[in-house]
Amino acid sequence: MSRIRLYVDHPLGAGQTVPLIREQAHYLFGVMRLGEGAEVLLFNGRDGEWSARVAEAGKRGGTLACAAQTRPLAPPPDLWLLFAPVKKARTDFIVEKAVEMGAARLCPVQTEFTNSERIRRDRLQAHAVEAAEQCGATTVPEVADLARLDRLLDGWDPSRRIMLCDETRAGDDAALPAEPGPWAILIGPEGGFSDAERARLAALPFTRPVALGPRILRADTAAVAALTLWQTQLGDW
Amino acid sequence: MSRIRLYVDHPLGAGQTVPLIREQAHYLFGVMRLGEGAEVLLFNGRDGEWSARVAEAGKRGGTLACAAQTRPLAPPPDLWLLFAPVKKARTDFIVEKAVEMGAARLCPVQTEFTNSERIRRDRLQAHAVEAAEQCGATTVPEVADLARLDRLLDGWDPSRRIMLCDETRAGDDAALPAEPGPWAILIGPEGGFSDAERARLAALPFTRPVALGPRILRADTAAVAALTLWQTQLGDW
Repeated sequence: MSRIRLYVDHPLGAGQTVPLIREQAHYLFGVMRLGEGAEVLLFNGRDGEWSARVAEAGKRGGTLACAAQTRPLAPPPDLWLLFAPVKKARTDFIVEKAVEMGAARLCPVQTEFTNSERIRRDRLQAHAVEAAEQCGATTVPEVADLARLDRLLDGWDPSRRIMLCDETRAGDDAALPAEPGPWAILIGPEGGFSDAERARLAALPFTRPVALGPRILRADTAAVAALTLWQTQLGDW
Repeated sequence: MSRIRLYVDHPLGAGQTVPLIREQAHYLFGVMRLGEGAEVLLFNGRDGEWSARVAEAGKRGGTLACAAQTRPLAPPPDLWLLFAPVKKARTDFIVEKAVEMGAARLCPVQTEFTNSERIRRDRLQAHAVEAAEQCGATTVPEVADLARLDRLLDGWDPSRRIMLCDETRAGDDAALPAEPGPWAILIGPEGGFSDAERARLAALPFTRPVALGPRILRADTAAVAALTLWQTQLGDW
């Protein structure tokens, strides 16, 4: 049985006392039935992973006592995932999978053919925390606010390459150019990009088109496939 | 708006009349509100993809008239996916994703640490049909009955290599040996393989271990990542 991992927004270090918020206390002591002395693993996105013991267990709070570092900080590569939100459950899956696969920042984008006009950023961020707790990550990617794709491209830092996944380009290669530095993956919406978007993306000097096979992939499948291609060719796999 | 694609278990060819079963008639005429003369795309796993027009539309049945072949038969490579069933929704996702990614056969396997002792094979097969309809495939992979991993290995054809995805081998490479011929991907259960299973798998002459990155992937994420690795190195991408 693997130990419980918890993300906390608190400094971690030898002898550090970590206070628990109500939801965490409920989870540890109410749901998981941990008692005083029980061991958990903590990470905060800055100090690596630490083992800690339950010092005080209460219904509405409690404290943990940090013991020793169990793993150093291991942030993912500087890779963003830009995706058009789809139906709720599948958007949740995209967030979960991007964390497992090792993206550093998740950017929901609104394209011309995106149905969803708003997202619950806080809900998606909570999903990212949960995925990081489960997959053994020591950081949690930030979920950005929904942004319009055209505006995002207006202010784009050209040193960040964009791996462009476009289902109309099935004849292309799955190989990426070996360009170091920051990258982003852009997954199109389920309705595809508009002609105007496609023309603009193709003309930008920092986009690199890749093909994701001969079949049409759903957005969440495409996200994992694209992240696999990037991680094995340029990332930390 | 893309056209409706329908899997039918009936020969397809120029001038061929295709009868619809009750569920298909309900979907086409009740849900999608197609009328006589409307065009759909058909595939049966043998004759490629054909356009067809609604000849008769009824509440409990109807017929389609095959017109012209729109795509040749394009079966996926001879790649099986062996996976331990997980929770219902995630098992459904594994089936859907394996079809999109291009697996030829889906084999649920029971390992020592697999919780699920039975599956609904017919339900999973229906999911595979639906995924094939949506992703543009011209074949539907067969979903096999649940089999015990040890018995499956007892009768294994050694000419079929097994790409072994084991989360305890994070230091390994993601590269596959360029061995042609039939392959299978084996995704471990969420609780991991037992020591006995791991020892046996490592000793078999047809297993090839690969690593899927430094983070722990859920079974459905691992399936897509492993299929991506295989398809880009040895498959049809």
